[in-house]
Amino acid sequence: MSRFMRKEYDSIVPYTPGEQLNDKKYIKLNTNESPFPASPKVLETINEKLISNLRLYSDPKLKKIKEAIAEFYGVSANQIFVGNGSDDVIAFAFMAFGGLGGEFCCPDITYSFYPVFADLFKVNLEQIPLKSDFSVDVNDYVNKGKNIIIANPNAPTGLALTHDEIELIVKTNPDNVVIIDEAYVDFAPGVSAVDLVNRYENLMVTQTFSKSRSLAGLRVGFSVSSKALTDDLEKLKYSFNPYNVNTLSVEAAAAAILDRKYYEDTISQTIEIREFTKSELIKRGFTVTDSKSNFVFAKSDKIPSSELYEELRNRGILIRYFNSPRINEYFRMSMGTMEQMKTVIEVIDEIIKERE
Amino acid sequence: MSRFMRKEYDSIVPYTPGEQLNDKKYIKLNTNESPFPASPKVLETINEKLISNLRLYSDPKLKKIKEAIAEFYGVSANQIFVGNGSDDVIAFAFMAFGGLGGEFCCPDITYSFYPVFADLFKVNLEQIPLKSDFSVDVNDYVNKGKNIIIANPNAPTGLALTHDEIELIVKTNPDNVVIIDEAYVDFAPGVSAVDLVNRYENLMVTQTFSKSRSLAGLRVGFSVSSKALTDDLEKLKYSFNPYNVNTLSVEAAAAAILDRKYYEDTISQTIEIREFTKSELIKRGFTVTDSKSNFVFAKSDKIPSSELYEELRNRGILIRYFNSPRINEYFRMSMGTMEQMKTVIEVIDEIIKERE
Repeated sequence: MSRFMRKEYDSIVPYTPGEQLNDKKYIKLNTNESPFPASPKVLETINEKLISNLRLYSDPKLKKIKEAIAEFYGVSANQIFVGNGSDDVIAFAFMAFGGLGGEFCCPDITYSFYPVFADLFKVNLEQIPLKSDFSVDVNDYVNKGKNIIIANPNAPTGLALTHDEIELIVKTNPDNVVIIDEAYVDFAPGVSAVDLVNRYENLMVTQTFSKSRSLAGLRVGFSVSSKALTDDLEKLKYSFNPYNVNTLSVEAAAAAILDRKYYEDTISQTIEIREFTKSELIKRGFTVTDSKSNFVFAKSDKIPSSELYEELRNRGILIRYFNSPRINEYFRMSMGTMEQMKTVIEVIDEIIKERE
Repeated sequence: MSRFMRKEYDSIVPYTPGEQLNDKKYIKLNTNESPFPASPKVLETINEKLISNLRLYSDPKLKKIKEAIAEFYGVSANQIFVGNGSDDVIAFAFMAFGGLGGEFCCPDITYSFYPVFADLFKVNLEQIPLKSDFSVDVNDYVNKGKNIIIANPNAPTGLALTHDEIELIVKTNPDNVVIIDEAYVDFAPGVSAVDLVNRYENLMVTQTFSKSRSLAGLRVGFSVSSKALTDDLEKLKYSFNPYNVNTLSVEAAAAAILDRKYYEDTISQTIEIREFTKSELIKRGFTVTDSKSNFVFAKSDKIPSSELYEELRNRGILIRYFNSPRINEYFRMSMGTMEQMKTVIEVIDEIIKERE
């Protein structure tokens, strides 16, 4: 930090994005991107006419994308807040509901950005330990009396709470905001709490176009909630960056979400690939969580995950290894295409064989 | 605000973007957009290959666009911070250098977002009155002992401080950050302070692709400063939204800034159109500031600006009227094409004639 920076930021440890290596061609399974391209409708939408209109400001109200999302979920457009990625949405939520001394809680093992947001906005964050099997103990959150953020399915474990469990948490914390970060929920049919937003004014569900819509590079995330909570985030947005989502992102994301068939096809393929990968790993003696997301979380007693990460990387396969307490025995591997995952399993077999 | 929102945001009055009306086709001169499309290189860049790569995350380091900007200005890439529009950059700067009780000052008549940023991040902002001719009194800022932000050229007046005046302010405030918001500086040859960033570690210059690069809808802004100040903003970015500029914006903006000839051509045309418009208004008895930007700031004693705004709007021409103390006699009109401005002058003649 320079001598000009406010000292209150001294202690913040920024978020570390996954590696984006370009030194050679990798099978890239480290940042939970989709192996499929975005809907063909995206390519149709980003055309010459749209590009030549870029001289004009984007629509700060984000009408087109809000209406498309609202149609998809059967809610009103004024219940949708759209951000420059869901990190943007969650950042505003921490600021709005926890800023300068408010209270949030979340699991101790989860998306590692939550504690960073808390530090940045001076939010008191309680990190509640997961059970030893990495599941969330719902009882820890019932009648909690603090704002709550839970990734469901959770990362990097992939485990999901049920719809009923989420509802219990929301219902028993009526005076606090409950944020359910559903970045991976499309890979977990029946789990989403979106249908509850009209029943509980304290519920905010966040989702992203980065995973199930194959648009990580476009930066679009959103929340669905009561109009009141949406308006809170809008107030902060108009005080920070009113034109937060650009024209190309708005148009492309709207096209993507309206292509329901393509979305359903790629989701079901991803689930099939995930279940295949889990079963292949289990056959080989790996411990594998029951991931409901687009990644698996696993470990083997034949090779430490830190070494498997290195060996795979040397062979052109990138996975994610977290050198953090409680999860440093595990690795996280995003789902590639079926062909890629078959290759990965073969390579893992080779690596383990070499060590015997 | 909902009952869940932190009370500290009660008093904030968010920024009001200019109108984006779609009820009919307007000559749109209200938000300082360029009348020219972006460089043809932008269209070439946003191609099928780039779009099909959107499944991958954008580069959080923003290497390509930082290197392009650095090359243009003859500085190092690590002196460039890139944001989702220059509002994003300035927001981070207010937060970094003024957050939670720090001190900033700026002119009382300037970009109306500065006081909003100050409110949001709990910065004490002193608003220093412009002189009666709307110019900045440099002496107000010499040895000020507070962080300073000055739009140069200023908005909505269009008036610019000289390069020497800016240097005097920067030099006499060595223990505070001086931010020069150069959103309009490309229309004011010789005014930019970018060449001073290697001499003064406390200087940060911000610019945007929204005006002179005809890319308002793409949302790309940046700062040029010492590496130390850049690093401060990077720390906040990685604690807020690491993937803040998407892949399409990075690639398109890099293509645009490297097309120097197109940029120089459209700038010189805009300056010619501005000088034409100023002289036509002066011929008709308007009071017109010596704007160095891509808009004019003027008033007529034949018609109040609030009424001129309404009359023009009824005839399909949008300009900006600010109902604020000291400037409520004036209007601001962005530069369209030469043909559009000739039409506007004719329409103004009609409006005034009808009232005689």
